[in-house]
Amino acid sequence: MKAKNYMMAVNKLKDQSSVARAAILKATTIAGSGHPGGSMSSIDMLLALYEYANIGHQNFNQEVRDRIIISNGHISPGVYSALALNGFFDMNDFISQFRLAGSIFEGHVERDTPGVEWGSGNLGQGLSAGCGFALSSKLKSIDNRVYVLMGDGEQQKGQLSEARRFAVKYGLNNLTALIDYNRLQIGGDIGEIMPQNIVANYESDGWKVIEIDGHSYKEIYAALDQAEKNDAPTLILAHTVMGKGVAFMENKEQYHGAALKEEQLSKALEELNQPNDFKHLKEMRADFFKAHQPLECVMPPHKIINELSIDIDNIRKYDDPIDNRSAWGNALTDIANGMKEHYKDTFCPVAVFDCDLQGSVKTKDFEKVLPNNFIQCGISEHHTATIAGSISIENVLTFFADFGVFGIDETYNQHRLNDINMTNLKLIVTHVGLDVGEDGKTHQCLDYVGMMRNLFHFKVIVPVCPNQTDRVIRYVAQHKGNFLVAMGRSKVPVIRKDNGELFYDENYRFEYGKPDKLRDGKDGALLMMGSVAAKAIEATEILKQQQKSLQLWAVSSPTAVNPEMLREAAATGTIFTYEDHNVNTGLGSIVAEKLVEQGLHCKLHRFGVANYCLSGKSSDVYTHAGLDATTVSKKITELLKP
Amino acid sequence: MKAKNYMMAVNKLKDQSSVARAAILKATTIAGSGHPGGSMSSIDMLLALYEYANIGHQNFNQEVRDRIIISNGHISPGVYSALALNGFFDMNDFISQFRLAGSIFEGHVERDTPGVEWGSGNLGQGLSAGCGFALSSKLKSIDNRVYVLMGDGEQQKGQLSEARRFAVKYGLNNLTALIDYNRLQIGGDIGEIMPQNIVANYESDGWKVIEIDGHSYKEIYAALDQAEKNDAPTLILAHTVMGKGVAFMENKEQYHGAALKEEQLSKALEELNQPNDFKHLKEMRADFFKAHQPLECVMPPHKIINELSIDIDNIRKYDDPIDNRSAWGNALTDIANGMKEHYKDTFCPVAVFDCDLQGSVKTKDFEKVLPNNFIQCGISEHHTATIAGSISIENVLTFFADFGVFGIDETYNQHRLNDINMTNLKLIVTHVGLDVGEDGKTHQCLDYVGMMRNLFHFKVIVPVCPNQTDRVIRYVAQHKGNFLVAMGRSKVPVIRKDNGELFYDENYRFEYGKPDKLRDGKDGALLMMGSVAAKAIEATEILKQQQKSLQLWAVSSPTAVNPEMLREAAATGTIFTYEDHNVNTGLGSIVAEKLVEQGLHCKLHRFGVANYCLSGKSSDVYTHAGLDATTVSKKITELLKP
Repeated sequence: MKAKNYMMAVNKLKDQSSVARAAILKATTIAGSGHPGGSMSSIDMLLALYEYANIGHQNFNQEVRDRIIISNGHISPGVYSALALNGFFDMNDFISQFRLAGSIFEGHVERDTPGVEWGSGNLGQGLSAGCGFALSSKLKSIDNRVYVLMGDGEQQKGQLSEARRFAVKYGLNNLTALIDYNRLQIGGDIGEIMPQNIVANYESDGWKVIEIDGHSYKEIYAALDQAEKNDAPTLILAHTVMGKGVAFMENKEQYHGAALKEEQLSKALEELNQPNDFKHLKEMRADFFKAHQPLECVMPPHKIINELSIDIDNIRKYDDPIDNRSAWGNALTDIANGMKEHYKDTFCPVAVFDCDLQGSVKTKDFEKVLPNNFIQCGISEHHTATIAGSISIENVLTFFADFGVFGIDETYNQHRLNDINMTNLKLIVTHVGLDVGEDGKTHQCLDYVGMMRNLFHFKVIVPVCPNQTDRVIRYVAQHKGNFLVAMGRSKVPVIRKDNGELFYDENYRFEYGKPDKLRDGKDGALLMMGSVAAKAIEATEILKQQQKSLQLWAVSSPTAVNPEMLREAAATGTIFTYEDHNVNTGLGSIVAEKLVEQGLHCKLHRFGVANYCLSGKSSDVYTHAGLDATTVSKKITELLKP
Repeated sequence: MKAKNYMMAVNKLKDQSSVARAAILKATTIAGSGHPGGSMSSIDMLLALYEYANIGHQNFNQEVRDRIIISNGHISPGVYSALALNGFFDMNDFISQFRLAGSIFEGHVERDTPGVEWGSGNLGQGLSAGCGFALSSKLKSIDNRVYVLMGDGEQQKGQLSEARRFAVKYGLNNLTALIDYNRLQIGGDIGEIMPQNIVANYESDGWKVIEIDGHSYKEIYAALDQAEKNDAPTLILAHTVMGKGVAFMENKEQYHGAALKEEQLSKALEELNQPNDFKHLKEMRADFFKAHQPLECVMPPHKIINELSIDIDNIRKYDDPIDNRSAWGNALTDIANGMKEHYKDTFCPVAVFDCDLQGSVKTKDFEKVLPNNFIQCGISEHHTATIAGSISIENVLTFFADFGVFGIDETYNQHRLNDINMTNLKLIVTHVGLDVGEDGKTHQCLDYVGMMRNLFHFKVIVPVCPNQTDRVIRYVAQHKGNFLVAMGRSKVPVIRKDNGELFYDENYRFEYGKPDKLRDGKDGALLMMGSVAAKAIEATEILKQQQKSLQLWAVSSPTAVNPEMLREAAATGTIFTYEDHNVNTGLGSIVAEKLVEQGLHCKLHRFGVANYCLSGKSSDVYTHAGLDATTVSKKITELLKP
């Protein structure tokens, strides 16, 4: 029985608080590491929150539940204690398995653990994630609340200011943030590490702020009540004491990240008036470890992301040159129209995120069809990457469209945390490579493959022509998981067969990992992706006039190079790779790896970008970089000489 | 003759303003792209600034000059106009070569251009860069000023809030920021894109704010005067008009990024009462292009970074296991002591940046020796990466030490801009790989090579033992350019020869790119880096007992794999790579590439991390991932079977 009324809850909470504090200390001592200090200072808030909020193990799969997001993931012992006391799992399982390889009770909270909504550990992202859940409810007209618990040190992260303004712009009055204001971070007093007026910061962005004693259930409850009534997002700044509840730990920064020794633990348990069952717990730990020690490196199964059923398979056919960006924008508009028709006047489960580049990344028509599903975040890419990730696990088909440098280079760590959280994000980046042209070095995203191949669950697609782009967008919309689709800026011709027919015709459907043989040949094989497709065809035509025939492959899934293709290409004796990408880290690099892995022997020459490049018309920049068709074909002729 | 007095400056500025506006419009029209709108709204501030500040082409190489940083690099036409009017180069060279491949007048300002202090284009980083220049002056007791010009849209970036607090903490009252508050960003009115109270934001972080008319030289001068008197960093929020000076352009957001057509230009030049020499300029452009068209892809030469002469070659010798982190910390302390002795009571040109992880990244002893040179930035990694980059080009030996996930993954784009700016940064990251242990997935930096190999000028070093780490740190301190040094968390044994002597003994000096053969063998070659060194030796010893001998190489410069070594290793028939890193993107990936490039044929098996991993003791996590010595040696035995 949970209680939203303070008077009914207080005795239960008081009882829970000693049990939870004992659990925090036992778990960290048994692991020999972990973060007791912040867990103890925030535990009263955690217990009150799980009592107050409409969330429990019974309704954890129901959309209408409240959400509790932990941004400072290192207070996992506090979180696990609260979750155990609320029936999500057995308390002694948590204590005995904490930070033990193979268990779900990790050092920082992860979605593998029942009750955890969002994995964290990199600070400063939780408020953005919370905005995603809160926005989802607003869009769906679900009357629930989202709570985000944060540390005080992490308020120093700039991403929080982006999240604050977003929450106000989108009227997220269903969002309550709580700060465990114990005033100690790893290095000491927050006022010495980095002076900050947190209240003024939040108020300057339009938030309501309530200051309370974070160890008074009465004040916590009153503040939670008030937050529900406020017409703006609310911050509860909870003054707390690090290590609260055990006299020798209180206000000592060393307990931010240091566990107690066993004898200190005994003393603490006495003070907390809790039984000392440490020996038993150690036996449990040894048993669990024995059982799991020989396991392979497998992660615990992640929560299933529900599948969205949409039918948007009416393709578009392009005959004339057009930029891939527009093909993406048109396919997106089709998706919008399809969903609008399907969902009628109810909420269409789709969201498109923009960082003030709507005209360039071609999402304007989507906004016209579904204005409420278009989310304008302004120039705040870190926040946007995170919120797009979090809303994508709420059964919302989510696109984040941006320039490559902002959508990838600037936001890699946000996508990394998204990927760890097994999100369902469709990241569409435009203006990649030298094709960005006059904007120059800072805008040349030359690492879209080289970056994203580091993320284990992201699939990367680099389409070669508008017709393929059209099919790719429909494909990613209908497939679970994280996808990057990367495209250039310029108009490109549609790819045709030798006989002039469309290569990617009405019957073509994109299949992840499948390369396309655009031309056949025997003197060598040219493997390419993305913006250089037309140049590659031109190069093969120049070579044809010299009686050299090249196999030409579009490798639009560069991180999933196909072994059959590679065998066929290697059989020609020489493979060339050709990409508008850093020559060291993209398609050519992956092809080299796979050649060795497959034990194939052939020559390999990689055409790509070898340095930050110039600012100019993209055709001129390609020429300067030696990546135009003439230079490439000339070099191929040289290299094919016996 | 420059004038710091308004009355003396005003007529000159008025004359300049029409010439500059005409130049902006001609340059963007001739290029067919670029950003006239913001250039026109900020040009009065730019002209006033270059007149007011102690900076000109005569003193541009003198340290005492003022610095003007342009954060919104897209207003390059405005900046180039102002620089030309101040004698940095010929105005018509700028106009005719703007955004032309091969010229130094790029779309976004770059350090290649005389007068440009810091290249930009990715928004939100300029204030941090300015903090670096201002901090440099404070540390060196140089009485100059730093001005940072920003756009209003970019105020939405969170990194600015980090920079603001830093500036106040470090008392940077020599810093004046100016915002071109034309209220239009690409997508329209800033209040619609992302409502923000800029004044309240700056004041909440302790800045002084002055609001002015950004087209009134009188008000600009008065504000610049006032800012010099303020005891805190000052923001001048300058209300301006996009497209100011040409009636049909004013307050039109489309001119943020669109050039005028030729007939519109003629009309504008008439209104500005400026001669129309467009035909001549087009001829100049064609001539320049003809002269530069056949060039290879070479960037214009970057400004030389002065070399720092330090002698810190007294090495340390380790016999017992110790973490590489401590070896780095000790070497850093030696550097501090060496510099303190050399520079006596004057400023030691060294700075160490921390983000509240001082104890873990081992910079505490440095702070004890040189407290003023230790810069505590709190949990604000984006800002820290940028400020560390910018101060590193001011003849300050600069280290930024952080965990891998924060120092690399979170801050990649800041380092990318640093790299484009040819900084001189020593980035030291600890806790990389599964060696981070209990902190789990979010803290496992598995991509330290995979990320940084995308940056063309960053050299990557992954030492294998404390003695090597000691020498590596001394090496990077004495060599120009950007270096990443990556290390794990745990204690590691020192590497010894078969006879028990230290491998990295007193006579060893690190040489970038040189691998070390730790053991000789003929049945295969094991190439490894970093934390797995001791495990690799153990594996070779297990194999020895099975009468298999392996060549064992420490490849501590993984992005510069040595061809000789590879030939020797390949000659054994089988190469194994072994790394505490994503198996797809690190040492093994680079070795595969180089094998193919060198035309070497041998088998290759890569040991590395294949997924986000568990939270537990690092030894347990290695076992779970199949990366312990026993599993590796067993697998090698299998693979070596004929």
